[in-house]
Amino acid sequence: MLDGTHDAGRRSFVASANGHDAFPVQNLPFGVFSPQGGTRRAGVAIGDMILDLDAVLAAGLLDGAAEDAAAAATGGALNAMLALGAGPRRALRARLSELLAEGSAEARRLSGMLHASADCALHLPARIGDYTDFYAGIQHATNVGALFRPDNPLLPNYKHVPIGYHGRASSVVPSGAPVRRPNGQRKPAAEAEPSFGPSRNLDYELELGLWIGPGNALGEPIPIGAAEGHVAGYCLLNDWSARDIQGWEYQPLGPFLAKNFCTTVSPWIVTPEALAPFRAAQAPRPQGDPRPMDYLWDERDQAGGALDLLLEVFLVTEGLRAKGLPAHRLSSGNARALYWTPAQLVAHHACGGCNLQPGDLFGTGTISTEGGDGLGSLLEITRGGRQPVALASGETRRFLEDGDEITLRATARRDGFATIGFGECRGAILPAP
Amino acid sequence: MLDGTHDAGRRSFVASANGHDAFPVQNLPFGVFSPQGGTRRAGVAIGDMILDLDAVLAAGLLDGAAEDAAAAATGGALNAMLALGAGPRRALRARLSELLAEGSAEARRLSGMLHASADCALHLPARIGDYTDFYAGIQHATNVGALFRPDNPLLPNYKHVPIGYHGRASSVVPSGAPVRRPNGQRKPAAEAEPSFGPSRNLDYELELGLWIGPGNALGEPIPIGAAEGHVAGYCLLNDWSARDIQGWEYQPLGPFLAKNFCTTVSPWIVTPEALAPFRAAQAPRPQGDPRPMDYLWDERDQAGGALDLLLEVFLVTEGLRAKGLPAHRLSSGNARALYWTPAQLVAHHACGGCNLQPGDLFGTGTISTEGGDGLGSLLEITRGGRQPVALASGETRRFLEDGDEITLRATARRDGFATIGFGECRGAILPAP
Repeated sequence: MLDGTHDAGRRSFVASANGHDAFPVQNLPFGVFSPQGGTRRAGVAIGDMILDLDAVLAAGLLDGAAEDAAAAATGGALNAMLALGAGPRRALRARLSELLAEGSAEARRLSGMLHASADCALHLPARIGDYTDFYAGIQHATNVGALFRPDNPLLPNYKHVPIGYHGRASSVVPSGAPVRRPNGQRKPAAEAEPSFGPSRNLDYELELGLWIGPGNALGEPIPIGAAEGHVAGYCLLNDWSARDIQGWEYQPLGPFLAKNFCTTVSPWIVTPEALAPFRAAQAPRPQGDPRPMDYLWDERDQAGGALDLLLEVFLVTEGLRAKGLPAHRLSSGNARALYWTPAQLVAHHACGGCNLQPGDLFGTGTISTEGGDGLGSLLEITRGGRQPVALASGETRRFLEDGDEITLRATARRDGFATIGFGECRGAILPAP
Repeated sequence: MLDGTHDAGRRSFVASANGHDAFPVQNLPFGVFSPQGGTRRAGVAIGDMILDLDAVLAAGLLDGAAEDAAAAATGGALNAMLALGAGPRRALRARLSELLAEGSAEARRLSGMLHASADCALHLPARIGDYTDFYAGIQHATNVGALFRPDNPLLPNYKHVPIGYHGRASSVVPSGAPVRRPNGQRKPAAEAEPSFGPSRNLDYELELGLWIGPGNALGEPIPIGAAEGHVAGYCLLNDWSARDIQGWEYQPLGPFLAKNFCTTVSPWIVTPEALAPFRAAQAPRPQGDPRPMDYLWDERDQAGGALDLLLEVFLVTEGLRAKGLPAHRLSSGNARALYWTPAQLVAHHACGGCNLQPGDLFGTGTISTEGGDGLGSLLEITRGGRQPVALASGETRRFLEDGDEITLRATARRDGFATIGFGECRGAILPAP
């Protein structure tokens, strides 16, 4: 699985890429951007720059499967490229790694196809057909369950079924887009009647996103052994949640308006190839946990299907900003805390015949790690709002206030490999209309 | 609201339209079809024929707003036409009513643009961005709740919140497409461990579908007074449901694989204009029910926002077919049994800022009427499978068997008006893979 594109010693002629905390030449994530005043086009992040993939294609610098992949990436959305699957994507990655390397014979021509990221707008990388949100963070499920059922936090199905529900595709936005506090119905326990107004318990949720590749025809399940091949890449995902609206509306059919007002993703698709050095074995299941059913069981997936990623959440408030204080780190966890692997989520979603399509988006569910530092939502950190977070500015937070800004960060780090990141997943809260 | 297009005396030069049980000249629903060997194009149902709207446009028979609407309907999906809203749609309807009338000066030219429906394939009328399923049939919610909570069937939020959840857009199919029985996890109460296999409790659900028109920008709610203008039309919707999978998976985030393997819709968009004579007052709420909150309250909507539609469900089995017996009518109800109007569903969906888009699809939720005849699912008819339905063939049904075919039918009937229908919403069960 590992090849020259992963060599820690490989450097790029793009100076800012060397030692970059997210986008060294070992990453090469795909996205859609527009330079100032320009139209949407496919791009690849490299250091502080974006390589215009449409221009690379037009310049005739690609051939074979790499050319096929880049041709499918044109038009301002990557769906057709995602549909091609791993082969063309790998060919394109290998060629870009070569083109962008230090000493590249094409360095001069490519320099004219590079744009400073700071001058570009980043868009969703694909048209999202359907968005599904899972609940694979077992510690999150346990923590949330414990708020309602202290003696029996996990429901009986949890360790058998990769629990998920359908989310809203239309309101998924790229990092940086504003997040408007929703109005809605809420009925706190202390009030006799429900009322309508701005959510009082606005929260974030730290998740990974999975971009779906080829997918399956309606009625034709995806075997677990083939499931990994349908994941085209990864991003960060903030599943903004209005806890008070959710508490009142969610019985018996699940979250609806509490979640569909906005979901923020990091705009780069970090490929399975870039993450190959950072795959890990599934965390061993506690004694007594059931073995996953056959349609979810694959030796290779158990041995190396999980992702070893450092996950962090940062909060900036108006108070911190006014005093020139740094962002407050709310948590530091790891994606290995997921109970189900990406392949298991894909195989489960398709096991009844539901058709997945290129550009569909999965959320993993909130990722919280055991112990105090790695909690993926304010609901957990503040124990349902009862234990506010104290900030260096003197402010406290039960839930998010207008003007607060949340940034998620993922970092893949391993001895002997270049560190790679996902780029920014950021959103700031605007007041309700 | 009513104009010449509704006149019961109006006849068409298309002979089969006159007295047609679904598509007289007073209906004129829009859809997408392909004639044998032809490409997808916009069409209008008239009697047993389909008028090729793309050809009418190309022939220069339209102008002004009617031409705008037809031009937006080209390309094999009606999304851009739905986006235009009521004005252009009404102009096109008025012009088509004139063109198709008995004695039309254009009858001869139009005859060449008519295709026998029986020779055409019908497709989904629009690319569905997001599909949302509501739970607005209060009798259904009561009946299903009573199976689990006999003393307290309706949850406390039901009469305040138009309960809904996000469904799966990719697996919505037009009438006639096969329905494959899903495999999935189920755990009947009598079994100690869950198992994986074909659903044993496969059911249908009788619903109306709403096609969304212009929609709203993210973060900008739709006021109740404007909500009706965002409904571009109606269809029948069968929310196929695997009850055993649902029972095991749905806590705490709602139905997922139990519903996403297939949803069947009737392929014609029946317009609010065609249904104008069949609008009705909301059924008076029982004493003690809360008044809808302000964001859901509109005098005009209360007075005439409901739909007076006869709704029927028919079952054909292999046994009935083999003996030459007619379809078994499983139920006969009315859409007035919905607790919330279409406008209320739209206003609720957007109240937190969720953006609706042209071509989005809503399901109303299963419609059951009080009394024994109008139950919208086998779950209710057979009381959870305990009281099987007896058929004239000697067969019985708890839930659906492979080979069973379900057809939904909607009929709008009122003295002094032509009867109109929705066309077919049919699906037959194939065995699990």
